[in-house]
Amino acid sequence: MARIITISREFGSGGRELGKRLADALGFEYYDREIIDQVAEESNMDAGFVENVLDGSFSINFPVTFGRTFLYADALQQNVTNLLVTEQKIIKALAKKNVDMVIVGRSADVLLRDYKPLNIFVYADTESKLARCRWRAPKNEALSDKELARKIKQVDAGRARQRRLITDKEWGDMKNYHLCINTTGANIKNLVPCLAEFVKYYF
Amino acid sequence: MARIITISREFGSGGRELGKRLADALGFEYYDREIIDQVAEESNMDAGFVENVLDGSFSINFPVTFGRTFLYADALQQNVTNLLVTEQKIIKALAKKNVDMVIVGRSADVLLRDYKPLNIFVYADTESKLARCRWRAPKNEALSDKELARKIKQVDAGRARQRRLITDKEWGDMKNYHLCINTTGANIKNLVPCLAEFVKYYF
Repeated sequence: MARIITISREFGSGGRELGKRLADALGFEYYDREIIDQVAEESNMDAGFVENVLDGSFSINFPVTFGRTFLYADALQQNVTNLLVTEQKIIKALAKKNVDMVIVGRSADVLLRDYKPLNIFVYADTESKLARCRWRAPKNEALSDKELARKIKQVDAGRARQRRLITDKEWGDMKNYHLCINTTGANIKNLVPCLAEFVKYYF
Repeated sequence: MARIITISREFGSGGRELGKRLADALGFEYYDREIIDQVAEESNMDAGFVENVLDGSFSINFPVTFGRTFLYADALQQNVTNLLVTEQKIIKALAKKNVDMVIVGRSADVLLRDYKPLNIFVYADTESKLARCRWRAPKNEALSDKELARKIKQVDAGRARQRRLITDKEWGDMKNYHLCINTTGANIKNLVPCLAEFVKYYF
């Protein structure tokens, strides 16, 4: 059976970078945004919209009072469901390719549990996540620390919410992962040999 | 500065075995029961009693209604406080020895924070902890699964309670550790190289 590593991560913790570097070091395939793009393509929808929906950061923020609005909300909910179903189909198809891979996010740990993946959770303290977000932010994004901290919380809340749609295994609950790694103040690159050793142990 | 590794662990997770094996592999000193014994010696008290008190598994389970009982409870509380103070003094003296060491339990991660220890949390699912406890239990201990599961919860609750006496950093909250490792179904011995790699990265 192919070796599958899933990486769940707090926004700003560097989990994506860690996943990419680990995949490169091990010669594993790497999936993250590629999944979003494929969902967007299959659904004929904008990748940005799809990402917002799948990450749970898209919420219905208008009053649901009139018949027509209900209809609209219903259609929207249907869209969300369809996109989630497409995403699950794509992730399961990936696993069937039977090649070693790292998948970041997307509740792949739950969706692919039959493949006995190694599940890693990456987290960091707020200060460290703020610093990383600042460093990675587009130059035209001028959020205050308070706004950025709120954004980080919102993204993570969205991830937890989306996860609850497909499983009762709470996002970020250490029980659901084999290893939880704190990247506060860490040089992500230097963590790769540690994880590689753990991969060797697990598979 | 000496390298200090602290291991906090759920009861039955194999954290103690992992700590001992890691210390042996690295050539570090190892402290666990030795601290209890030293506290007992310095306090002129029975090591079993001291262990119960320091692990928080000793609770006042009689009605506190009469003046005399209050006095008794007061004296008991004073004992608890004295033992905790002695324990802290001993742990800090250990760190001052300036030798590399692994310390299991005793909130050493908090007490020795000035030494920038590597803090590891070890946990496992209930089934796995039950199996480990059964395997390690004295032959004359005949607890049912339900009783044993309750004991495990009680021990961990005691650890969390004792920790709250000296810090607001919650026991078992991943934010307070550099690495959290799930030993469900694990062969503890095989985990040692993973942790050794992590130690190399951290220090």
